[in-house]
Amino acid sequence: MPSNAILIMPVTRLTNGESEVVNDLVAIEEPLEIRLEHGPAHQRKTQNISVTMRTPGHDAELATGFLFTEGIIKSAKDVQQVDYKFIACAENRENVIEVSLVADVVPHLQNTERNFYTTSSCGVCGKGSINAIRTVSDYQSADFNNTIDTEILTALPGILRHNQKVFEDTGGLHASALFDPEGNLLLLREDVGRHNALDKLIGAAISQQILPMNNHVLLLSGRASFELIQKAAMAGINIIVAVGAPSSLAVQLAQEFNITLVGFLRVQRFNIYTAPQRILIPNYEDSYQK
Amino acid sequence: MPSNAILIMPVTRLTNGESEVVNDLVAIEEPLEIRLEHGPAHQRKTQNISVTMRTPGHDAELATGFLFTEGIIKSAKDVQQVDYKFIACAENRENVIEVSLVADVVPHLQNTERNFYTTSSCGVCGKGSINAIRTVSDYQSADFNNTIDTEILTALPGILRHNQKVFEDTGGLHASALFDPEGNLLLLREDVGRHNALDKLIGAAISQQILPMNNHVLLLSGRASFELIQKAAMAGINIIVAVGAPSSLAVQLAQEFNITLVGFLRVQRFNIYTAPQRILIPNYEDSYQK
Repeated sequence: MPSNAILIMPVTRLTNGESEVVNDLVAIEEPLEIRLEHGPAHQRKTQNISVTMRTPGHDAELATGFLFTEGIIKSAKDVQQVDYKFIACAENRENVIEVSLVADVVPHLQNTERNFYTTSSCGVCGKGSINAIRTVSDYQSADFNNTIDTEILTALPGILRHNQKVFEDTGGLHASALFDPEGNLLLLREDVGRHNALDKLIGAAISQQILPMNNHVLLLSGRASFELIQKAAMAGINIIVAVGAPSSLAVQLAQEFNITLVGFLRVQRFNIYTAPQRILIPNYEDSYQK
Repeated sequence: MPSNAILIMPVTRLTNGESEVVNDLVAIEEPLEIRLEHGPAHQRKTQNISVTMRTPGHDAELATGFLFTEGIIKSAKDVQQVDYKFIACAENRENVIEVSLVADVVPHLQNTERNFYTTSSCGVCGKGSINAIRTVSDYQSADFNNTIDTEILTALPGILRHNQKVFEDTGGLHASALFDPEGNLLLLREDVGRHNALDKLIGAAISQQILPMNNHVLLLSGRASFELIQKAAMAGINIIVAVGAPSSLAVQLAQEFNITLVGFLRVQRFNIYTAPQRILIPNYEDSYQK
């Protein structure tokens, strides 16, 4: 993790009524503008796609992952190169990044103003949002019978915390982590924005060409919203486990896509919201049929 | 809080290796499209401004608060009425809301495609984002010498939890709460999205005509990002206390606007990141000068 993800600053700390000035670690948040360059060689054009507030680091992955999970590009082969663009600015930070597409690739830009899942012909509702994703995602089937053992599953948050050590003190970063079914950590990305952490992870997975990720487990450090399940579904992930709570629409989307969704993951307990067959539980069939 | 904020669904709960199917409470997440109707009487036009994933309830406040914190409208007097629009949809939910402006009010729509703070002439950087807010906000001064006692401050999270009781089981809702300097709870709004919870609260405050809120304390149930401090700054709030961590840009914005920002608020301890003079600390001056 690059050191530009953390800022050290003096704070006044109150402890049991006693105050002292100490140095504290704070997670860095800075805007990133994502630009897209595309078109035939003699007619290239550049347009602004999005500005997101993110923690610097893995910006190329973030940009590629975002374009992929928004349905604008389809694979790593669409991308020619990704570069920072330095603009005239007092701070002159690496806050503008441009993704250049291969000349004959046409980006799916029809919905860049709003997320595609909110522009369904049905209008604005959860069902319409879910159906919109079905038409855009290449990996709808999630029909794989991959599984994970309960004992491996409950150990994952501990592995995540161990590997997030550097950021224990900031307390301000969300994480997305990818594991194989044996519980080996494959990828870990962090950000002040939970959607950014997942876009970074998926961007890394795209460049490693491991999509669809239908023999993996995605761990989310916090809550599971619709947006996160949507991004995971776009990447073909079919086991998603969250330390926090899922929302209703996250559960509905997981149900429709036959994605296994676990929430409130702890060492001693967790909840399975959808597709429980992928979680190998001791005596599962007995208790489920009660 | 309306009952449409919670869904009951069966989940498979694992506890110490034993599984059982139980009913669980999940926070509802549904899209809300915010539309704006404006223009002179003979030439009214309607446009889509935003779609946000939110928890149903207080939608009119959410829409009004969002338009205000994005700098599109300036006060409650700009708004003529706010109504749901029912669209042809299988679910036919209350997911489209239209804010109609008074005939002679011109909305500041130049930046509806992206948040105004990311379109500063400086380019894309933290400093530019902060300066953009300075030009849009009506309540920049935050020069008020309002204060809050440490004992009152540390009691606020407990008061919030007590009043959030209904949602203890979902674990999926963020909260924004407004207190007076004596620690009395004035407003509480909840949502799956933390920015929505704050927009709902500010929307309610607008309709109660209590802006600028420079003699109040805003409590955030989670982390304090730039976006939340920006929204609070737009409403003239100058004491913001968060249960979670602030980001670097949140601290910088608070510093520039002379807003008091507290993080990691607990009964026994908390951190003051900016403008500590508003927090009345026992023996503060002694220890600060060490």
